[in-house]
Amino acid sequence: MNDDYVHGYDPQANTRLQDQADALVDLLHWDTAYPEGSLVLEAGCGVGAQTTTLARNSPAASIVSVDIAAASLTAAKQKVAAAGLANVRFQQADVFALPFARESFDHVFVCFLLEHLPRPLEALARLKEVLKPGGTITVIEGDHGSTYFHPDSAAAYDAIRCQVELQRAAGGNANIGRELYPLVREAGFDAVRVSPRMVYVDSSRPRLVDGFTRRTFTAMIEGVREAALKARMIEPERFDEGIRALYRTAEEDGVFCYTFFKAVAEKPL
Amino acid sequence: MNDDYVHGYDPQANTRLQDQADALVDLLHWDTAYPEGSLVLEAGCGVGAQTTTLARNSPAASIVSVDIAAASLTAAKQKVAAAGLANVRFQQADVFALPFARESFDHVFVCFLLEHLPRPLEALARLKEVLKPGGTITVIEGDHGSTYFHPDSAAAYDAIRCQVELQRAAGGNANIGRELYPLVREAGFDAVRVSPRMVYVDSSRPRLVDGFTRRTFTAMIEGVREAALKARMIEPERFDEGIRALYRTAEEDGVFCYTFFKAVAEKPL
Repeated sequence: MNDDYVHGYDPQANTRLQDQADALVDLLHWDTAYPEGSLVLEAGCGVGAQTTTLARNSPAASIVSVDIAAASLTAAKQKVAAAGLANVRFQQADVFALPFARESFDHVFVCFLLEHLPRPLEALARLKEVLKPGGTITVIEGDHGSTYFHPDSAAAYDAIRCQVELQRAAGGNANIGRELYPLVREAGFDAVRVSPRMVYVDSSRPRLVDGFTRRTFTAMIEGVREAALKARMIEPERFDEGIRALYRTAEEDGVFCYTFFKAVAEKPL
Repeated sequence: MNDDYVHGYDPQANTRLQDQADALVDLLHWDTAYPEGSLVLEAGCGVGAQTTTLARNSPAASIVSVDIAAASLTAAKQKVAAAGLANVRFQQADVFALPFARESFDHVFVCFLLEHLPRPLEALARLKEVLKPGGTITVIEGDHGSTYFHPDSAAAYDAIRCQVELQRAAGGNANIGRELYPLVREAGFDAVRVSPRMVYVDSSRPRLVDGFTRRTFTAMIEGVREAALKARMIEPERFDEGIRALYRTAEEDGVFCYTFFKAVAEKPL
């Protein structure tokens, strides 16, 4: 059994756990597969981080992946082509002004998009318009407020708070994961089911220590250093102390916890 | 399928989900069963909240349940007798001075004990002494620092912090769950595997809303009001605001998250 095996995993997913990136992708995606012939909208595909998994897990479905940024789409196209996947079409589009007819898609898939949007509820309403009645929407988001670790460190929480506040200042919500249930329901979807996807990391899972604690989460927080200092949110010494404390959780006796949330719901008939 | 069905559950466990208490108990216990003829020490059984499940899940094992408090043992005995279970023997004992010969037990089980102890590592060392080489130890603990919710509320975190500080003042650690991996390893056990058991509650899971968010977690925090005010940890208005905010998360659009941790490890041969 794989080191990073997650309790409750589809055993088939395990065969795809080639590296840490795949382990995390599978934690989020293992239970998403669309039937043959279905047309699926991926809204906010970015550089295609989820697109290859989506296309691979639903080889007989057609995926339309949109993003507002042309540069991201170029990167996503290259990624999908490099993976030899032919069931994805890319199109530049704003989620608030989708260039599709009403009820065009059998299913909608959204991952790490709502956290960046000033009006997530309106985005869900737009996505609902282009979805066929009876079709499903799948929404996956993280929640930085779900982070905790050992050894504990107030400085680390202060550093994380900088990222959360910067994202809020940009109109987003880095803690949106926990809100998926009320959001998706308020947007008028039925049969909303939310499941948390917790990433638990200790030194018995070395690929997650390196791939998630160090290179994903801590690197992301470290990446806002300049912006946080420029906005005078924190003293540089305190920020650096927080980053050191986060790296400290990746040591032999450290533990790191983070939770993603996945919502699946239906558009009423 | 049951409303409170937890992803990855043993389907057999589902048949026992008669009420919220059972749902939570099963989340923690479904994967613990001891073989026929084995002798199991339950250390710190309290009023027997876990004992009946332990005995029921391992009907052919013999359980020795100990607690330092005579009054708790009396309640535990009554509970086990009322459940018609005959495979439990009770004995009053201090975990730091266990009245058993070295290597007496095939397995050791500990639930919600270490969080109350000033020297959890020493307790694990004492438990290791009475365990046979090759036997397993199972440790389950909560972590109040794993709590987050929607709507968010700083006052609610302040109220929770009172409980954490009072428990610390009494020598305990209410956030010990995340530390199980390093603790159990440092105590000299092998093959330590920790799995988080997250309780996710939204209004599609009404029994958990009532049974966990309201009647378990919030009631517990509410219960320290007098002690917190007496210790001048918080203003009464702020505490009450926090409690209202916690009850608010049990409303139709609220969400509540809490995580327990379960460690299983072996005593080296």
